[in-house]
Amino acid sequence: MMARAWHLMRRPDGMPVMDDFALKDLPAAALGDDQVRVRNSYLSVDPYMRGRMNDVKSYVPPFQIDAPMDGGAVGEVIESKNEGFAVGDKVLHMAGWRDEAVVDAKALNRLPDLGVEPKEFLGNLGLTGGTAYFGLLEAASAKEGDIVFVSAAAGAVGSAVVQIAKARGMTVIGSARGPAKCAFVKELGADHVVDYSAGGLLRQLSAAAPKGIDVYFDNVGGDHLDAAFALARQNARFAMCGMIDGYNGGTPAAFRYIMRVIAMRIRVQGFIYTDYLARTADFHREVGGLIASGKMQSRETVMDGLERTPDAFLGLFSGANTGKMLVKL
Amino acid sequence: MMARAWHLMRRPDGMPVMDDFALKDLPAAALGDDQVRVRNSYLSVDPYMRGRMNDVKSYVPPFQIDAPMDGGAVGEVIESKNEGFAVGDKVLHMAGWRDEAVVDAKALNRLPDLGVEPKEFLGNLGLTGGTAYFGLLEAASAKEGDIVFVSAAAGAVGSAVVQIAKARGMTVIGSARGPAKCAFVKELGADHVVDYSAGGLLRQLSAAAPKGIDVYFDNVGGDHLDAAFALARQNARFAMCGMIDGYNGGTPAAFRYIMRVIAMRIRVQGFIYTDYLARTADFHREVGGLIASGKMQSRETVMDGLERTPDAFLGLFSGANTGKMLVKL
Repeated sequence: MMARAWHLMRRPDGMPVMDDFALKDLPAAALGDDQVRVRNSYLSVDPYMRGRMNDVKSYVPPFQIDAPMDGGAVGEVIESKNEGFAVGDKVLHMAGWRDEAVVDAKALNRLPDLGVEPKEFLGNLGLTGGTAYFGLLEAASAKEGDIVFVSAAAGAVGSAVVQIAKARGMTVIGSARGPAKCAFVKELGADHVVDYSAGGLLRQLSAAAPKGIDVYFDNVGGDHLDAAFALARQNARFAMCGMIDGYNGGTPAAFRYIMRVIAMRIRVQGFIYTDYLARTADFHREVGGLIASGKMQSRETVMDGLERTPDAFLGLFSGANTGKMLVKL
Repeated sequence: MMARAWHLMRRPDGMPVMDDFALKDLPAAALGDDQVRVRNSYLSVDPYMRGRMNDVKSYVPPFQIDAPMDGGAVGEVIESKNEGFAVGDKVLHMAGWRDEAVVDAKALNRLPDLGVEPKEFLGNLGLTGGTAYFGLLEAASAKEGDIVFVSAAAGAVGSAVVQIAKARGMTVIGSARGPAKCAFVKELGADHVVDYSAGGLLRQLSAAAPKGIDVYFDNVGGDHLDAAFALARQNARFAMCGMIDGYNGGTPAAFRYIMRVIAMRIRVQGFIYTDYLARTADFHREVGGLIASGKMQSRETVMDGLERTPDAFLGLFSGANTGKMLVKL
């Protein structure tokens, strides 16, 4: 059977729809020198991919029209023309959105032996966990005893933030949409959960954090960010990660409380996981330890089959996922 | 003649008006131990005082109703019951909004001998210059070679930022309202000036800074802040000082470009001058040197007479000042 890959057929206007994508056969390709063929076992879909569907320069280049998309994937080597990789090796790479990939050896990462499943390297040991780890500890300089507010706490990044913050001795308030997700966030160890489908976010948050917050980990933007401005304590630090609210256009966010940045000396810090790749070993050691010892749950929402990849991606924006969204091949 | 002081008679709703204030005789007061009587020569009016007219907790306590207001003032000792101060000493203190003040010796600062006029200690060597100095160099970590955008660059803080940034070898773009103020900002040494009364702020700024900006010193908030988000380069730093736009209420600011915080790893840092008081000597040495050597102009807008203090204050919000607004007694 031919290898197949999802192509982006046109640039979405606002929220993407199924017709923006098409599954196409990949041309048969013999391996060149230092190339490796990988059979993918899991594909990652992530909110940042929405940005790559626009034709604008950002921290990652835009997807090209009618060309295979890419993204995080794990799989097993099935053919190799590089002496560093052998058939059967488990690897992580960026040629996702397809079932079989030809990858240059230098773009391939062997999975370190941390006693965890390979798919963890797309979740709590990959981009999502790393975003949580470095955002919380570096961008927001969060430390033991801090009161931390995390938006979209049932999501992939948010659920990792909750667990890392609890493991580090912080008080955690998470927001999530609906009772089932709120219950999940509590299960992860959050001290308080705010259900933002119930309205009154600021009122709910101020009841959950009567002394205010020291850290805000932002996955949402909009009203969540404004509520964090409203309740920030002196020298509060905000890690700006997602603002998924704004990914598909719509009205610009208005902020009633942004002026508190001054009086409270708030620091708002944007960050990108890849800025911290040099420190991956620290991250893998700490978070790998939490996973291996059962102190960190890796809740996933898994869709089956390459055909469902766009469904999985679109589900990120409708709240279809609890924890990390993956596609299993 | 009795000493007199301005009282706040009611809390302004939105923009303050003259009837919010009343000039009243101060009760005659004999000096207690360690108290000093000062005849004020200059009073400072500053935008932050608007916040003190609201009944909300902030970094400085609110003014009380029908009690003398206070604020920065310089003057001369005319009577002393403290051995550290003698008649004729030039001093800086916070009992402004009045012509004569009784001050505890411990709340009084003798003016250091920097070879400059006493009123400088209300301007470029006081709160306004210190806000510029520490905001630019500490909150925004600005350094030689940076491209710096300063809003309200003809104002008290803004004009100090322009000059300190130029003295430190930065490229400076200032915004100001109308041709006269723009010409003044150019005179101060700014490389480019954007006239925001002409509209098209983002278009103008992007023409003045085709490579984008490394530092934004915010005195305005609103559309200026959004334009800075739009044009920030990677690792840009914003010092959040004023947001005078929002001081008198009105619609909450909407931001179209705030999402760039993430991709550009922008750091937005609120700060207050008084956080840096321990470093006043460094600030006085550098900025005092610039003033004494003629490298820093102290443009002031001076109103004459205690009676005009509220006019001077209200003028801050209508753009009546170029540079620091002072009242001369």
